[in-house]
Amino acid sequence: MTRYFEDFSAEQIFHGGPIVIDAEGIKEFAATFDPQPFHLDESTATQTFFKGLAASGWQTAALTMRMMMEALDVAGHFIGIEIEEMRWPLAVRPGDILRVEVEIAATRPLRSRPDYGLVKLKVATLNQGDQSVQQMLTTTLIGRRI
Amino acid sequence: MTRYFEDFSAEQIFHGGPIVIDAEGIKEFAATFDPQPFHLDESTATQTFFKGLAASGWQTAALTMRMMMEALDVAGHFIGIEIEEMRWPLAVRPGDILRVEVEIAATRPLRSRPDYGLVKLKVATLNQGDQSVQQMLTTTLIGRRI
Repeated sequence: MTRYFEDFSAEQIFHGGPIVIDAEGIKEFAATFDPQPFHLDESTATQTFFKGLAASGWQTAALTMRMMMEALDVAGHFIGIEIEEMRWPLAVRPGDILRVEVEIAATRPLRSRPDYGLVKLKVATLNQGDQSVQQMLTTTLIGRRI
Repeated sequence: MTRYFEDFSAEQIFHGGPIVIDAEGIKEFAATFDPQPFHLDESTATQTFFKGLAASGWQTAALTMRMMMEALDVAGHFIGIEIEEMRWPLAVRPGDILRVEVEIAATRPLRSRPDYGLVKLKVATLNQGDQSVQQMLTTTLIGRRI
């Protein structure tokens, strides 16, 4: 089953994941996009703000996209328009098991594009201890069932 | 030269990049984080919203992080705390040459952590035609010169 705009309504909650994040994945992402010592090397990382290896927030964000897609199972098109708020309250560590809880905050048809609708999502990314590692409020474009 | 919190003040502008984004890089990122047809395959992509291959917004965001780091040249620590706003006004295409303009919006010492300060940044990611492909307002933690 895949979902269209019409299948979403406020207060629904969808679950996605889990994804396990490991030290190699953290270092590989960081080498390309966020080459800072606390994302690249365990022993140097102990001397830093994070006191140990931690994932780039952008890796958490990208993995969250993957899990959101799987959670919502949208047919064909799921396009980010804007983010109103994103925070990283806690570091993601090697071995963390991440999952997402996606709450539909609001839906709105689009007058200018009758084949799409806007869906506002409140997305929590959680670790294996149910601690929040990322909070996001985002508006997406989802195709209608025509 | 590398910079500390004390080196930043409102209205300064820093430039980073360029980074060229190619079709292989778009598909590779998407396969891991955002596996949708318009990010994965040129010919399928022509039938979609984007009418051709386009990069995941999360890839643009991650590349922007890389260019921001280079632009600001922070000594040791540059940590994202939150994003207040992020938008993707235009698709990023294979062959696009991206750069960033980072404006210091505000700076504020941190009472709770005298070794860090908060720096709010307004970050524009632009393509080779000076068109904005991403706009972001973000607050970061930057180490002080102690």
